[in-house]
Amino acid sequence: MTPYRAIEWKNDRLILLDQRLLPHQTVYVTLRDAAGVAEAIQNMTIRGAPAIGAAAAYGLALEAVKPWPDARTMQEGLKVSGTALIAARPTAINLAWAVNRVLAVNQNPVITTPELLREKIVAEADAIANQEIANNIQIGLNALELWPQEVTFLHHCNTGALATVDYGTALGVIRAAHDHGKKVFVYVDETRPRLQGARLTAWELGQLGISHEIISDGAAGHFLRRGQVAAVFVGADRVATNGDVANKIGTYMLALAAHDNQVPFYAVLPTSTIDLSLSSGEQIPIEERDPAEVLGLQQDGFAIAPAGSRARNPAFDVTPNRLVSAIVTEVGILRPPYSTSLSSAAAEAQG
Amino acid sequence: MTPYRAIEWKNDRLILLDQRLLPHQTVYVTLRDAAGVAEAIQNMTIRGAPAIGAAAAYGLALEAVKPWPDARTMQEGLKVSGTALIAARPTAINLAWAVNRVLAVNQNPVITTPELLREKIVAEADAIANQEIANNIQIGLNALELWPQEVTFLHHCNTGALATVDYGTALGVIRAAHDHGKKVFVYVDETRPRLQGARLTAWELGQLGISHEIISDGAAGHFLRRGQVAAVFVGADRVATNGDVANKIGTYMLALAAHDNQVPFYAVLPTSTIDLSLSSGEQIPIEERDPAEVLGLQQDGFAIAPAGSRARNPAFDVTPNRLVSAIVTEVGILRPPYSTSLSSAAAEAQG
Repeated sequence: MTPYRAIEWKNDRLILLDQRLLPHQTVYVTLRDAAGVAEAIQNMTIRGAPAIGAAAAYGLALEAVKPWPDARTMQEGLKVSGTALIAARPTAINLAWAVNRVLAVNQNPVITTPELLREKIVAEADAIANQEIANNIQIGLNALELWPQEVTFLHHCNTGALATVDYGTALGVIRAAHDHGKKVFVYVDETRPRLQGARLTAWELGQLGISHEIISDGAAGHFLRRGQVAAVFVGADRVATNGDVANKIGTYMLALAAHDNQVPFYAVLPTSTIDLSLSSGEQIPIEERDPAEVLGLQQDGFAIAPAGSRARNPAFDVTPNRLVSAIVTEVGILRPPYSTSLSSAAAEAQG
Repeated sequence: MTPYRAIEWKNDRLILLDQRLLPHQTVYVTLRDAAGVAEAIQNMTIRGAPAIGAAAAYGLALEAVKPWPDARTMQEGLKVSGTALIAARPTAINLAWAVNRVLAVNQNPVITTPELLREKIVAEADAIANQEIANNIQIGLNALELWPQEVTFLHHCNTGALATVDYGTALGVIRAAHDHGKKVFVYVDETRPRLQGARLTAWELGQLGISHEIISDGAAGHFLRRGQVAAVFVGADRVATNGDVANKIGTYMLALAAHDNQVPFYAVLPTSTIDLSLSSGEQIPIEERDPAEVLGLQQDGFAIAPAGSRARNPAFDVTPNRLVSAIVTEVGILRPPYSTSLSSAAAEAQG
């Protein structure tokens, strides 16, 4: 197992590793209600599409373990909390997916006591978290056929255990290659503005003993052009039916650079990240975050730009399907045309 | 004139605005010898291809104004200093170009006294600096035909007065559009790792009253894809005969994103940046700087990555000519095929 855990449910409390303080401090925060979880998602104490889905599910579990006078009041209360949790961040579909899974249990008309409802809801949150872990391990195994013996990866943002309850999606694939004896080296995009690569991915790779070097996001093209990268791996926050991939800002330019150098570009994600209600990536809402994240290193109060400067801070971008070599999921490696392969995969995952 | 000056020759001393401390502090340093200038170039107190050329020319002037016993000793001394100055940074060709111009004066066999040689060398350094300014102003005028009334630019790194003695190359073009009444807006790439965009370009645009917003380098593709950018402007550190452009790291990925969205991508440079001795960009040496610049904000001693992390830090990349819509110089706007247009331009500039 991973020697750290982003999310843990313990004694009816949710414990999160505060990812804003890594790598310099390892601080755990204990949350007691859904509002606290929504805030932790919004301020990125916890981040990563699968991880915020699991955290939100546990946010509802925190509400469920409160004392309620009757099942009806409880069900209404949880519905309100679910709406607030979904609103915490707009781009990653896993958030709504996980909340809606728990709310479906919540709406069960057969359950008539708060005690029974509580038990079912906590179990559903646990099931979501455990399924994420199992999916990630399967994703890693599914991708193994792609690797030669010596593998130089390039990775954007953070998609490890921190982003996904445990093991990781894109980073899980890299980890699986390492665990299976491949000679792995990872170029780590630092991933401005929040520096998830330099802070979190470098920290995770260090913990796992995987060789890596950090690069500026703009340097990825240079190393791709020099033939020093065998494959690019990213996660995803939402994938549309046509295979367009919304992911951390900078992913689109990275995909262009991979494509220009005939280097495969893989998006790695559980099928819960696929949104079949959207026909293309144009419809995916892109969160725009506080400009302060660009103007400085916000969480450290460190100013970079001139005082009074303005900034724009889209947190995600959309990579068109034509730049995506394959999508790796727990049900297998999906290839173009994605309209067909994604629908089949989603159906298989549900079946 | 610009209300600040990166380089000033005054009372036989070279005064540089310390660009490592901007935008938070405006500190000038006074240099007294070529070794000090080489160090200032290496540590980026002064940066920008045209500016380091001019600074290096003045570095030789600093040596020239020292007391020398005779012209021969002086000439030998300056040759040694010139070699050290050229070695300070390898990528920008303007550095060698400017030093070699001064050394050509230095080698004049007709001059027999240190006094006369000193006068000629200081005059040559002044001529280089003044020619840079005149070239930049002409470059801005040459580009005016390219602009509609409302212009949204995207700019990488810093190419303003700070990088070029005065006025600017790519930023000079933007400034010329603004000065001629165009409604200009600039997306400013922050330009990791040294943050020349967020620190210096934002500061210069603020001083000049030009509207702008800072973005993460990885966000450029998002704004290009959304159709919010009319043209991309960058400077250059060296251009090969075939039109391949070496410029600040991240330029290649930006050029790919512009190309993918049919947005023109312009490199703006004085002809002194063209290196006709190299047939393609593959031959341009790429400086790799201290990994500490990526692992933190070096000049502030601020650590980002986990302690002990490794990083790679290529300071420049090469953008292939196929992605360059035009090259704007003081002798006009050059179009493909560059092998022809660049040679003609260089000949015209010398003629």
